Amino acid sequence: MRRLEEMIEKQGRVLPGNILKVDCFLNHQLDVKLLDEVAGEFFRLYSDAKVEKVLTLEVSGIAVAALTALKFGVPMVFAKKTQSANMSEEKYVSRVFSYTKNREYEITVAKEFLRPGERVLIVDDFLANGKALEGLLDLLRQAGSVPVGAAIVIEKGFQGGGDRLRGQGFRVESAAVVDAMADGHIVFRS
Amino acid sequence: MRRLEEMIEKQGRVLPGNILKVDCFLNHQLDVKLLDEVAGEFFRLYSDAKVEKVLTLEVSGIAVAALTALKFGVPMVFAKKTQSANMSEEKYVSRVFSYTKNREYEITVAKEFLRPGERVLIVDDFLANGKALEGLLDLLRQAGSVPVGAAIVIEKGFQGGGDRLRGQGFRVESAAVVDAMADGHIVFRS
Repeated sequence: MRRLEEMIEKQGRVLPGNILKVDCFLNHQLDVKLLDEVAGEFFRLYSDAKVEKVLTLEVSGIAVAALTALKFGVPMVFAKKTQSANMSEEKYVSRVFSYTKNREYEITVAKEFLRPGERVLIVDDFLANGKALEGLLDLLRQAGSVPVGAAIVIEKGFQGGGDRLRGQGFRVESAAVVDAMADGHIVFRS
Repeated sequence: MRRLEEMIEKQGRVLPGNILKVDCFLNHQLDVKLLDEVAGEFFRLYSDAKVEKVLTLEVSGIAVAALTALKFGVPMVFAKKTQSANMSEEKYVSRVFSYTKNREYEITVAKEFLRPGERVLIVDDFLANGKALEGLLDLLRQAGSVPVGAAIVIEKGFQGGGDRLRGQGFRVESAAVVDAMADGHIVFRS
């Protein structure tokens, strides 16, 4: 999406460690008009996918996931992050390794909110190495739900997670794919 | 809002300790169509308030705050919760006591996202004793922003926070006010 790429170019800051800081419109302050346009693009891309639910991960995926779910007219569920979750009768649990924080954390969803056979679109703000997305897919696998694909606001293509999942036959659509960040200059995939 | 009250009656569960569990449509799984109607009600109530920004607190206020900000066509900012935040040049910090968790936590907003004189509407999913709302008001006071009021999805009226703030002349509007919960029966303020 050209308008999103322009916003990343104008407002994003490249920090050491391949960090793309976009907290002025995506992670802390939110440009909801832009995010609503992104949600409209997700709806267009997955309009034939018979989406019945949107799944995201707290915190910064929630706004765009809510706007996307509203386009489809379906409920949204967010997985919760915890330091350590016990397996229980009531919830699905998966483990995710965070390279940014260099530690593992757990993500959980109450079992009552994921149903067998339900067609679920995963929405998130960022996709880098793909570990969070794999954790969400693991929760859906446990529930017997049907993941129809992922819709990502910004994919860091050079970190490979998106292309690895595409290589496995999983559909990943990103509103903007950053293929390189060097000397503060951002290169988008065309 | 009658439809919200019906949803609370139908789907909410009253747990020991005056806890109203509504995670099937507000806190974990989200009925975004209902929340969009609530956001429309907030827009109607504050349509004359010249709102320039919406402020909420992570996590469960984010979706309804995003939908509300979209109605007004303004940015949304969410305050972050941390265990302990150092005062710094870059962010405003306030302390909030949580009765649910029986401990204090810090809430922060980057200084660049709250401006002096800016007219800010606070949106949140719950209002009980009002401590979180007072913390958000403290952040706005530090920034010199103008709080035009609060828009709350569910106010637990019997915990007194909303009426205390109204008594101080601050505008608080709630889509549903629960005045009593006894034996699983919920009484709404008319």
